[in-house]
Amino acid sequence: MHADASAVLGPFVGVLGGMGPLATVDLLAKIIEETPAGIDQDHVPVVAHNVAQIPDRQRFVAGDGPSPLPAMHAGIARLNAIGAGCIAMPCNTAHIWFDTLAAHSRAPLIHIADAVAEVLSDGLADGPAPARVGLLATQGTLRAGFYQQRLGARGIEVLHNRDDEFDAWFTPGCYAVKAGDLERGARLLGEAAARLAERGAERLLLACTEVPPALARLDPAGLPAQIDATRALARACVRWWQQQPRTTT
Amino acid sequence: MHADASAVLGPFVGVLGGMGPLATVDLLAKIIEETPAGIDQDHVPVVAHNVAQIPDRQRFVAGDGPSPLPAMHAGIARLNAIGAGCIAMPCNTAHIWFDTLAAHSRAPLIHIADAVAEVLSDGLADGPAPARVGLLATQGTLRAGFYQQRLGARGIEVLHNRDDEFDAWFTPGCYAVKAGDLERGARLLGEAAARLAERGAERLLLACTEVPPALARLDPAGLPAQIDATRALARACVRWWQQQPRTTT
Repeated sequence: MHADASAVLGPFVGVLGGMGPLATVDLLAKIIEETPAGIDQDHVPVVAHNVAQIPDRQRFVAGDGPSPLPAMHAGIARLNAIGAGCIAMPCNTAHIWFDTLAAHSRAPLIHIADAVAEVLSDGLADGPAPARVGLLATQGTLRAGFYQQRLGARGIEVLHNRDDEFDAWFTPGCYAVKAGDLERGARLLGEAAARLAERGAERLLLACTEVPPALARLDPAGLPAQIDATRALARACVRWWQQQPRTTT
Repeated sequence: MHADASAVLGPFVGVLGGMGPLATVDLLAKIIEETPAGIDQDHVPVVAHNVAQIPDRQRFVAGDGPSPLPAMHAGIARLNAIGAGCIAMPCNTAHIWFDTLAAHSRAPLIHIADAVAEVLSDGLADGPAPARVGLLATQGTLRAGFYQQRLGARGIEVLHNRDDEFDAWFTPGCYAVKAGDLERGARLLGEAAARLAERGAERLLLACTEVPPALARLDPAGLPAQIDATRALARACVRWWQQQPRTTT
């Protein structure tokens, strides 16, 4: 089956999603938005494994629950089994396990922080690269340090929320979005963002995939301009596809 | 791999998508909206094969292009290979090939017209079942006759656009949506809908997956109330998942 299907359809961008399900839908929509396409057949082929039955990443990082790693490996194995050409994860926290997942995957994984770094090094549409960005990310992402390392190497300082700010606003804001309550999520995550702006963040780096759909509900004039890590990841997926040799169907 | 991954993750709703890609995103979003979920792990597990490299269905039906069937079989084979428990297609026209696809799939396929019939027989939230619905669908769907048969059996008359109305409004409206021009799509599809309303349609049955994102841009007061076949399909997917025995992760 696998050889036949791949011969007919060719490779695709695999999406290890479900962390959460709405964030995966957000990535798929942004891949379409970022693709210059006139007809269906121009679009980036994607197989999205939007299976949320993965143990909670934030809880595991906090020492409260089982590891999500076996379920993540299983999802990546499925995507590889049917011919993924690369794999993207619309979940920043999941990148804590990036190296292990990449080591067990035939298809290369695209790192979301590389995708953000590429957007910043390409230059922003509305101005130069910022000196200070405010990182809106889970405590797991923050402690893993990959954004600080990759942006720091380019001379960009990364500001972040304090532990008490996580407890009061960021973490409950994320769970509100996961539960589908975008209005409450917007209010809570907006408070977390405001603290970073007060400390001098010139841009907000939305590096938790629950954040963009929520912040989109707030008045953009009240906060620093945003860099959306999900949109950066979408662009990296489109770039990957544009670099593939074309097959005809 | 397959046995291992399925043991860890369990069965899922397979989505044979990409016809077009935005319609697939629309179904995934509606599955989430229709799911009563408090945390990620409550959500319906979905693997969406959003690969648009399937030859154009409307062109093939019009005698102008290769068959989409081999690519559709290949997509269904991929979903089966990794453990799909059922398969849904967010493309009404694709249901022309429903019987053949179902015969070659281990996982049962959910028919979108069955999903619509179930919504109508459950009763509508805002009133009784209509006597006349206006079918907004491609000429391929219309000629296949499955909506007329399944709704006719329940005493519901199905009104549809004439050939000249397809050429002027419906068909170019669909292609505008596929190309990402929702504004133009809304204007053209709105004209097609208005003709059905003039002929007595009490409800519009949006039975082409390009239609709902476009009509959502129009003033709802100007047209009959809508039945969204994609949302009906989403509800059928949620029902399937709710009927599965629960696995723990």
